[in-house]
Amino acid sequence: MKRIYLDHIAATPLAPSVLEAMLPCFREHFGNPQSLHAEGQAAATAVAVSREAVARLIGASAGEIIFTSSGTEANNFAIKGLALAHRAKGSHIVLSAVEHLSVLNAAKSLEKSGFTTTLVPVDREALVDPVEVEKAIRKETVLVSVMLANSEVGTVEPVAEIAKAAKARGVLVHTDAVAAAGNMPVDVRTLGVDALSLAGDQFYGPKGGAALFVRKGVRILPLIDGGIQEGGRRGGTENVPAIVGLGKAAELALAAMAERQARMARLRDRLIDGLLGSVDHVLLSGSRERRLPHQASYFVRFVEGEALLLSLDLKGFAASSGSACTSKALKASHVHLAMGLDHATAQGSLVFSLLDTTTAEDIDALVAVFPPVVDRLRKMSPLYTEFLKEKTP
Amino acid sequence: MKRIYLDHIAATPLAPSVLEAMLPCFREHFGNPQSLHAEGQAAATAVAVSREAVARLIGASAGEIIFTSSGTEANNFAIKGLALAHRAKGSHIVLSAVEHLSVLNAAKSLEKSGFTTTLVPVDREALVDPVEVEKAIRKETVLVSVMLANSEVGTVEPVAEIAKAAKARGVLVHTDAVAAAGNMPVDVRTLGVDALSLAGDQFYGPKGGAALFVRKGVRILPLIDGGIQEGGRRGGTENVPAIVGLGKAAELALAAMAERQARMARLRDRLIDGLLGSVDHVLLSGSRERRLPHQASYFVRFVEGEALLLSLDLKGFAASSGSACTSKALKASHVHLAMGLDHATAQGSLVFSLLDTTTAEDIDALVAVFPPVVDRLRKMSPLYTEFLKEKTP
Repeated sequence: MKRIYLDHIAATPLAPSVLEAMLPCFREHFGNPQSLHAEGQAAATAVAVSREAVARLIGASAGEIIFTSSGTEANNFAIKGLALAHRAKGSHIVLSAVEHLSVLNAAKSLEKSGFTTTLVPVDREALVDPVEVEKAIRKETVLVSVMLANSEVGTVEPVAEIAKAAKARGVLVHTDAVAAAGNMPVDVRTLGVDALSLAGDQFYGPKGGAALFVRKGVRILPLIDGGIQEGGRRGGTENVPAIVGLGKAAELALAAMAERQARMARLRDRLIDGLLGSVDHVLLSGSRERRLPHQASYFVRFVEGEALLLSLDLKGFAASSGSACTSKALKASHVHLAMGLDHATAQGSLVFSLLDTTTAEDIDALVAVFPPVVDRLRKMSPLYTEFLKEKTP
Repeated sequence: MKRIYLDHIAATPLAPSVLEAMLPCFREHFGNPQSLHAEGQAAATAVAVSREAVARLIGASAGEIIFTSSGTEANNFAIKGLALAHRAKGSHIVLSAVEHLSVLNAAKSLEKSGFTTTLVPVDREALVDPVEVEKAIRKETVLVSVMLANSEVGTVEPVAEIAKAAKARGVLVHTDAVAAAGNMPVDVRTLGVDALSLAGDQFYGPKGGAALFVRKGVRILPLIDGGIQEGGRRGGTENVPAIVGLGKAAELALAAMAERQARMARLRDRLIDGLLGSVDHVLLSGSRERRLPHQASYFVRFVEGEALLLSLDLKGFAASSGSACTSKALKASHVHLAMGLDHATAQGSLVFSLLDTTTAEDIDALVAVFPPVVDRLRKMSPLYTEFLKEKTP
């Protein structure tokens, strides 16, 4: 059976040229960039070239890029590093209620050091209102962090407006752009943010290759203390192959951006319309207009999302119920609850995310297989039986 | 010109079978271990197999292994995570004065949260005296961290004795085994430690693949907050290729341990005796007896270490002046200063570290090239001219 992998957001395969760029770093160019000898200098050059490529992808300069091992590390680094570096000003943080767990839990861990957090609510589409962010800002607020796009429901947040409001109050702004960067145009100057997280495994780069942009002149404390790597801001031997892979993926993403985004959006809309039209009681989750180009997510009512995933898996389709970082926890997602959904609806969450290799035929195959799969599961659902009873007098 | 790479400690090339094990994780098995579908489960299985292999290398059980992105991250995680998890007991930490910067600076960053640190002094060979560690322990001490081996001077510390003394006082013990693990036998039960850091790039595994052992039942707070990965103790998508590479390297190291260690020690002794016999005013640094099997380090008097490295590099030999994490900082190493050396002597630091591929011929070639290189540099050294003047009345 042909597998149709539609879980881009959990992991993308490497672009072949990314792996090709990485291979020499495992073999002949295995040096440590901090070494003074020839092997070290070759590695240092490779890292410098990647730094330029990553900076270019987001309109930053190379000196503003700090490599990390994951988007989660970049988010932890941003929240903890910025908050602690500026705590003389105050100890209040503003986040949206739909942030990734790495942001929410980083802020929570700061509460042990006396920080407090305000979670800004979202609407039914998971949209954050810049006015609500502004209202949450106090005299002692040091940091606002609102994600650029939410991978679970696809919604793209109005980060530029949020940043404008926060900067007017003299507050630093971070955005978690892990789901967005490489998949849609991202420019740190247009956004007006002080810090931005991205991860290569979201755009055909390797796991382990990620970065935090920190605007020039903005102070940040290290999350990982150590030597003089990354300007003393992140210790540990540079993961040269991962950094080189991230750089190559950034270069490819920038070159393909307009075409990739348009093509993804076309396939996404085909999937959205296809599934919504194929089965009753299926709702699109997140915003239809302000949406990641490669993401289509739903609430399938009267079905348990877990069972739906496994049924689709058996039919050859890999999908997700939300964030991979929580999927095995089997709890209703905080994102869905923040959107005001009841537990029953949230449990039917289903997320597809498309790849460069996804075809219209893949989408059509999914749309064809979907109704019988859902039907079968609903027949076993007590909730559905009850619903039908209530409907028929 | 043939390059002879003798800087194992800065970076090792991948063992060919390590790269072979990693490649499928970049290609067909690219899934996210947290995903419920087939692609995710394949990745989860690969991670589980590696966890077993890493545990076996150090006599631990799989549930005690937490994967990290570097030895530096593992050290930060241990120091900060253990200290903060147990701060109800007290806020005092005991370290040796020759710890890696990732340990020293992690402890320093805790000082902002009210922790204090005692640095235990070392002798001329960088040896830590367990009695001194015991004396440093107070009622409010929560953690002792002493490295298993120092990569800059090669000395292997009496960690088992230190751990015994600390445990008798009810204090947690961490050891930074980054330089040791994979290169000499390491067993967490024999050592009696509660936590131990290791890194695959020190034994032919990939950069980005490292781990922290935390003894079962010992509480630790995450350094990187996020999802449910690594039992909720380390967030972020698992770097599957790096983890698989680390596991394979651990398996190879365990199988080759006795042979590798003996062979390395023979070559090391050949190098130590060869260089000491070839040029005047060269001292071995660190302990001759309690020594890493693959490390030979010296102080070459009346020579600037930096210039010596570059001269050797031009002759085809890659060596180091100490830790790669500080080499470009061009300051006298805190390790050398703690050993009681003056700045002038410390500046002549030279470290060779051997690889599996190093041959007796490589060593002999180095011993042959060494005297003329040193001679030439000394002729340009004002310190040497002065020394000669003083000697000849």
